[in-house]
Order: sequence, then C-alpha cells, then structure tokens
Amino acid sequence: MSTVIFALRPVEADGPLTVALPLVRRTRDPHEGQWALPGGWLDIRESLGSAASRTLAETTGLAPSYLEQLYAFGAVDRSPTRVVSIVYWALIRPDEIVEDGIENVGWFGAEGLPPLAFDHNEIVDYALWRLRNKVGYSRIAHGLLGDEFTLAELREVYQTILDRKLDPANFRRQVENSGTLIPTDRYRTGSHRPARLYRYNQDVELADRGPLSTPH
Amino acid sequence: MSTVIFALRPVEADGPLTVALPLVRRTRDPHEGQWALPGGWLDIRESLGSAASRTLAETTGLAPSYLEQLYAFGAVDRSPTRVVSIVYWALIRPDEIVEDGIENVGWFGAEGLPPLAFDHNEIVDYALWRLRNKVGYSRIAHGLLGDEFTLAELREVYQTILDRKLDPANFRRQVENSGTLIPTDRYRTGSHRPARLYRYNQDVELADRGPLSTPH
Repeated sequence: MSTVIFALRPVEADGPLTVALPLVRRTRDPHEGQWALPGGWLDIRESLGSAASRTLAETTGLAPSYLEQLYAFGAVDRSPTRVVSIVYWALIRPDEIVEDGIENVGWFGAEGLPPLAFDHNEIVDYALWRLRNKVGYSRIAHGLLGDEFTLAELREVYQTILDRKLDPANFRRQVENSGTLIPTDRYRTGSHRPARLYRYNQDVELADRGPLSTPH
Repeated sequence: MSTVIFALRPVEADGPLTVALPLVRRTRDPHEGQWALPGGWLDIRESLGSAASRTLAETTGLAPSYLEQLYAFGAVDRSPTRVVSIVYWALIRPDEIVEDGIENVGWFGAEGLPPLAFDHNEIVDYALWRLRNKVGYSRIAHGLLGDEFTLAELREVYQTILDRKLDPANFRRQVENSGTLIPTDRYRTGSHRPARLYRYNQDVELADRGPLSTPH
C-alpha cells in the first residue's frame, strides 16, 4: 500500500503555490536513503482503505478525511521481490498538514522530483495526471480549500493544478452555471476589495466518488 | 484477478439491446455451481494486465483489444481466505464475441443478476456505475461499435448504457459540437433512408486512458 497526498503549498518559503506531496526517506533496503511514497504492508485483518489510512498516519502523521483508490501497480520488475502495490490518493488543505515531530518526511513539488524508490516517480506522474484530468469534470478542488472560499481562491486552485492562467470572467461564468456553488452572505476582507465567500452545494450529485466512497 | 466485460446485445433472442456480460459457472468450492466473473490467479512472472488478459481468454475465449483496470477489491470478508482481487474491465463489440466450445460460460443482463459468488454482484454494480459515468465525459462508447457507425447507432449505444431516451436532434448537435466524429462519404442503406456513416477522430485527445494505457 502506498499513498499519494497532494496539497497546494509553497515548496520554498514565500514561493508560489505548487502541487506538493509528502515523501518518506527510506531507512532500509531496498533503496535505503531514497525518498519514497508513504506506505506499508496490508494487514490480513484490515480492508484496503483502512490499511491506506493506517500506513499513512504511521509514516507521516497525516489523516486526510477522504482517501480514494488510485491504481494497483504490479509490473513484474518494480521491486526485487514480486510486490503489487495498491495505491491510494488524497488531497489535504494546508491547514491540515502536521509537520512537528515526524522524522524522515519531506514535502516536494510534484514536478521535478528526484529519483524515487521503486516505480514511485511513475506513480506520482499518474496521480498528477489523474488530478489534472479529474479537476475538469468533478469538484475535486474542494479537497484543497476550506469550507468557504472566494472565486479568486477557487480559481487559484484550478490554475495551480492545471499550471495555466484562467480568465477570471470566463471562470466565474462557468462556475456559476455549474450550479455547484452557493453564495454566502459573508465576504473576505483584507488588502483587496471585499470578495464574496462561496461554499459547495452538497445537494449536487458528485461524479467523482460513486458507490465505493466508503473505504474498501 | 477478475474481469467485467460488457457488450451490448439482446439477452434473449429478438429481445432489446441490453448491457450484458459473460459469467463463468464455478466448478469448485467456495461457491461451487454459482456464477462468477471470469478470472484466475496472478502468476508471479506476469504483469496485472497480462494476467487479466490471460485469465479472461482461458475462461471465456474472449480477447478484447483493450482492458482497463477498474478497482482492487479487498474487503476482509469477501472470501473464506484473505484475497484481494484486482479487477479489470473491457467493452467488446457483439461481432467479437466467441461462444462456440466454451463450457460453463453464460451471458447475463447486467441488471437483475442472480446472486453471484463472492462480492461479484458488488463488482458488477461498480463497473456499471463506472460505465454510465464515463460515457458522459469520454468516448468509451467507441468500444461497443464498429469503426464506422451512424449517429442513430451511436445514440442507441448511449441510450442503452444510460437506460433512457435521448432527443435525436440534441444528440446530433452535441456530438457534432464535440469535434470527436468525422463524417465519411459512406452511407448505411437498408429499410430506412440512407444514413451517413461516421468514424471517430483519432486526433482528438482522449480523456479516458491516460499515461497508463499500456498494460501494467
């Protein structure tokens, strides 16, 4: 079991928002000293989703509220012994990140990773592809935002994931037409002019979870 | 390893087109005599995709050109011993179906199945959900049609998968606007007035396969 967890955060202090993920430095062979996805072995008495949550918490201290199965990787030569890895993925908000007291964990930008252990570079690339693909047809961006957000904040999430600029007026129109957002009476105030806060409409059926939304 | 293969075919002679799948009658315990998804065990020297193709061919004689990983099912109680099943799925055209000389194989409508072995009812329901969901944002319907088809034939595929009528004029407009179809110079002739044949535009980027389109 391995897990890819994405968050939007600067990789360097004061740097731009980036799609980033936590990696764990391996303390034993194979690949001792290399960075790898957080993970561990499936216990005979636990479901796949439970194992993903447990191994993630043990290695990184992270507990995302939602984990989704990504893919089972089983190339014959991916490990010195035959290992099929069932990979989960999750999104977390920056304020959910715990970094105190966790050894051997580092955050990296998802693009331009160093060579990772096993086939983990390939796994991250696939997860990133899935994230970019899915943001176009589901409201997965939700997992990277708080309960309430401005349209500019939502647009920044999309821009960071897709790695391109989006026209603010077009973006507003598309989001408003989608029926997935509910305007609130509250506003974000600060250095800019006040911006209305929105929340997701929980009544809109998601196209992204399906009947297996409970852990399997 | 198990595989869900969908085809559109009548379940009864002269019946309506239905989303149907082949099942294999189990000849040993557990669940001897019950119907189950075609499948078998992963060999230590083969990739997941190869194992899916092999076990499918051995049990049903079917060889779809494209198999996609669906999900790994690993509930603790899904089998008397602990078994994680990595499930693939595929679509085939009716003319690709081989039925001669294959014992213990039967075709069933995907809705209203009898109780299957293990958690295979749940697996079929999930695959059906994925099919219905995916037909909305990818050109997966292609896998159920020949190289050339009329708009009425394509619409019938969508109607059967989605189990509802689609307005012909709206359907035509949406398909034409999508840029995924290329009109040919050929026509389907028969009892109705001649209908133009279309083919899929191979240049349009697919949103449905991604970087793992080769078997893993």
